[in-house]
Amino acid sequence: MSATPGYHDTKDDLLKRLRRVEGQVRGLHRMVEEDAYCIDVLTQISAATKALQAVATGLLEQHLHHCVAAAIESGGPDAHSTITEAAEAVRRLVRS
Amino acid sequence: MSATPGYHDTKDDLLKRLRRVEGQVRGLHRMVEEDAYCIDVLTQISAATKALQAVATGLLEQHLHHCVAAAIESGGPDAHSTITEAAEAVRRLVRS
Amino acid sequence: MSATPGYHDTKDDLLKRLRRVEGQVRGLHRMVEEDAYCIDVLTQISAATKALQAVATGLLEQHLHHCVAAAIESGGPDAHSTITEAAEAVRRLVRS
Amino acid sequence: MSATPGYHDTKDDLLKRLRRVEGQVRGLHRMVEEDAYCIDVLTQISAATKALQAVATGLLEQHLHHCVAAAIESGGPDAHSTITEAAEAVRRLVRS
Repeated sequence: MSATPGYHDTKDDLLKRLRRVEGQVRGLHRMVEEDAYCIDVLTQISAATKALQAVATGLLEQHLHHCVAAAIESGGPDAHSTITEAAEAVRRLVRS
Repeated sequence: MSATPGYHDTKDDLLKRLRRVEGQVRGLHRMVEEDAYCIDVLTQISAATKALQAVATGLLEQHLHHCVAAAIESGGPDAHSTITEAAEAVRRLVRS
Repeated sequence: MSATPGYHDTKDDLLKRLRRVEGQVRGLHRMVEEDAYCIDVLTQISAATKALQAVATGLLEQHLHHCVAAAIESGGPDAHSTITEAAEAVRRLVRS
Repeated sequence: MSATPGYHDTKDDLLKRLRRVEGQVRGLHRMVEEDAYCIDVLTQISAATKALQAVATGLLEQHLHHCVAAAIESGGPDAHSTITEAAEAVRRLVRS
């Protein structure tokens, strides 16, 4: 779509956050292996889910600031479809 | 808390699901490294979040069937606090 | 199912909370009629959604304390299906 | 903020949807008054929550198509703050 994604300027931070979530999920695996109490596992799953959602809303913000703004600035039919596409992504986030 | 967690009988399946989510998050890291389109990254985050939530609700079901049921069967004040604790876990899941 | 629902002891509070949510939704209608700013409408929708979710998790807690506990105490196959049913309700809440 | 809100063209539909949600919440009140089974009340709460979320994401889409697009087209510092504000609204929706 675009050679430069909307998260270009915050890519390092985004990669760091995803590594952290990966670590959280690996930690969940370890907890289950060691027979941790169900509620403690559930608490950690909620934390990992929240972290993923925060990555998603941050990424969406960058997408609006860069990709959607650029599409609107250049005008044309792309602007409309880019906005509809972003709205669909929000629907998936809200439902997930 | 308990030597045998509520997910004892489905532990292998639970571990497999968590490995899969870990793979999804690692895949997200790779997508960002390769400058994937924002919306494609967002779609994958929604999928990983949904997978984590499914793990959580499955785990909660096992917890109700085993730990909560056992606490109620043995009676006493533990039954009440175990149920309150499970309800708190549901609150965290719904909010995350 | 049961003549006395799980929320029997907190019914007045539950009715009051639902009235309040009804008022919030009526307030939303008024805001839209008066052409309120989109973001202000969205903020109120988030508040109403949160209020509904809080009603739901409170109600689920009462259901666990009373209906599910009673089903487990009387034992038999009903206990299992009552727990499965509660877990399904949690799944719907988490997804909504 | 703006005399013409982003939902101007779909205002009638929006008002109709909000009326329907109001009816759903009133229906919930009636169910509780008549001592309906907890799980049936929970199912209806999930339906009302889903309906509210659908109103919110539809409204957000209109806001992006009209208000945010207009702010970007006119340029200036308003464009940036309008996008940040929309992203904040998405965060509240995802968390609610």
